[in-house]
Amino acid sequence: MTEQEIKNYVRIYETERKKVDFKLRDLLKGRDPISLYVPASYILKSSGKRLRPILVLLSAKVAGGKYNQVFNAALAVEMLHNFTLIHDDIMDKAELRRGRETLHKKYDLNSAILAGDSLLSVAYEYLLKDCNGNAKKALASFTHGLVEVCEGQSLDTDFETRERVTIDEYIIMITKKTAMMLKMSCELGALLVEAKPRDIKALSEYGLNLGIAFQIQDDLLDIIGDEEKFGKKVGGDLIEGKKTFLFLKALEKAKENDRNALLEVVRNKGIKRSEVNKYKMIYEKLGVIDDARKEIQLYTNLALKAVDRISKNRNIGIFYWLANSLIKRNQ
Amino acid sequence: MTEQEIKNYVRIYETERKKVDFKLRDLLKGRDPISLYVPASYILKSSGKRLRPILVLLSAKVAGGKYNQVFNAALAVEMLHNFTLIHDDIMDKAELRRGRETLHKKYDLNSAILAGDSLLSVAYEYLLKDCNGNAKKALASFTHGLVEVCEGQSLDTDFETRERVTIDEYIIMITKKTAMMLKMSCELGALLVEAKPRDIKALSEYGLNLGIAFQIQDDLLDIIGDEEKFGKKVGGDLIEGKKTFLFLKALEKAKENDRNALLEVVRNKGIKRSEVNKYKMIYEKLGVIDDARKEIQLYTNLALKAVDRISKNRNIGIFYWLANSLIKRNQ
Repeated sequence: MTEQEIKNYVRIYETERKKVDFKLRDLLKGRDPISLYVPASYILKSSGKRLRPILVLLSAKVAGGKYNQVFNAALAVEMLHNFTLIHDDIMDKAELRRGRETLHKKYDLNSAILAGDSLLSVAYEYLLKDCNGNAKKALASFTHGLVEVCEGQSLDTDFETRERVTIDEYIIMITKKTAMMLKMSCELGALLVEAKPRDIKALSEYGLNLGIAFQIQDDLLDIIGDEEKFGKKVGGDLIEGKKTFLFLKALEKAKENDRNALLEVVRNKGIKRSEVNKYKMIYEKLGVIDDARKEIQLYTNLALKAVDRISKNRNIGIFYWLANSLIKRNQ
Repeated sequence: MTEQEIKNYVRIYETERKKVDFKLRDLLKGRDPISLYVPASYILKSSGKRLRPILVLLSAKVAGGKYNQVFNAALAVEMLHNFTLIHDDIMDKAELRRGRETLHKKYDLNSAILAGDSLLSVAYEYLLKDCNGNAKKALASFTHGLVEVCEGQSLDTDFETRERVTIDEYIIMITKKTAMMLKMSCELGALLVEAKPRDIKALSEYGLNLGIAFQIQDDLLDIIGDEEKFGKKVGGDLIEGKKTFLFLKALEKAKENDRNALLEVVRNKGIKRSEVNKYKMIYEKLGVIDDARKEIQLYTNLALKAVDRISKNRNIGIFYWLANSLIKRNQ
């Protein structure tokens, strides 16, 4: 990939990201009652990577369509994502999201539950705007993504109170909670422009594997991330006793004292902020930070192999760039 | 309407209601994770009137279709309804629903939020099973119902903290929160069997007006209802400081002492259980129980007028019977 190509991909991504941001900012403007839509709007106004809508757009394009055929669907996917964030933040008692107060902190529990629900309702509304002949398939894909994300969140919650969780179970959980949504984004973009079945399949697999890599990277950033850029407190997963890839891998490898220290996290359902560094050192000693990096690379490679199967004469460079830049991200 | 006809309508309603109950009982069986679907199943297992799915079925039938063309859609509507019940009960801090513990009481807040979300996701899944050529219209109708019910719930919450609410504002609120869902049920049943536009419209208007009548009746039953049959504590709306039709009408009519007593409810955001009888007597004195009955009759008549416009040669008797029996219900 030449420097010029990379520059070009960054430009494309940033242009579309800004368009998504811009549209989301005013998307609920003028809607009544404001007691519902102002809180819902609050989360849409926080800028983010907008990875999911961008995947919808890029997938439509690479499959032979145009951005404007799927722009509403792209917004729908981002709204669905934000619906999950709002409800997850309530369940996780999270106080910060993208460096801002979470919705239930800024407003209250009831507003947050309902703002989430309404974002989901408006998401379907927007998706329908881009549905034509293939409405049923597109809506089935979107709905399947929703079903999976609920199941994933439930598994994630289960894992917090379970003593033992295997790495395989963890992969199933993040597949449902994170990766299926990225898979759906790719599938939806392709479906809506009536792509060839083999292209839909290739893009879906790209999204799925990218999603798994993305989530493990997220787990990794919780430990090695830059607090300011990441927008979350470092070590938050440990503090909350979350069974991340790194934690489970560490538990698999640790012996004696380290193992006891890790089991302590499970027993106490988390640790104090002051203990984060101690656990970071255990992770480093056991080499699980490297393990995570390898796992991320493995799934990224699977994603790249999938996108290679897209029909010839299509420019898949941006999919390569995207997968590689997600690995290098620090937020 | 002859006694024989009424018997027949009761039999039809009960047969379909039992089928719906039966299907809902096992609908989530075998799904994983059970931590998600067992709580979601809990609410589906509580038997109810199943008014919304029955409206889907009857509307499909009267428009020339068959029950089995829309049975999954009927279940979808009931699941959507139960999604709203779960989240509303959290927001209202309700402890009882249909005589059983509410979901967040039986389980916990997180399970209840997620069980609600997942019921909505499975609702769309089921709706899609019955969508064919008209998928887009049917899904738009369903989604519009969802948007409206979120807005209605938000208005309802607003009203609790607002000093003044007019009867007109109240009608808008219950239209969104309750009536649009009944309208959608009728519309959906008709849409899915590709009914004539005029029949779809007539059925929609029937559902809408029936819904308004239904909600005012609900407000009325909170005061004059049989606690055991109604499954809720009598006077619950007063205790929670809800601005029901009866309350707003009373406030409109009351003078001096009565007015002050009513304004006290607003100021204190509710009353004690021991005060319910006092307010019931104020309602009786002011005649708002009769006012509510008249309003219910008014909207019921509008519903009946609408259903009269359905194409000739269709048997609309059961729609008459249904509207009239809802007025007479005590639960």
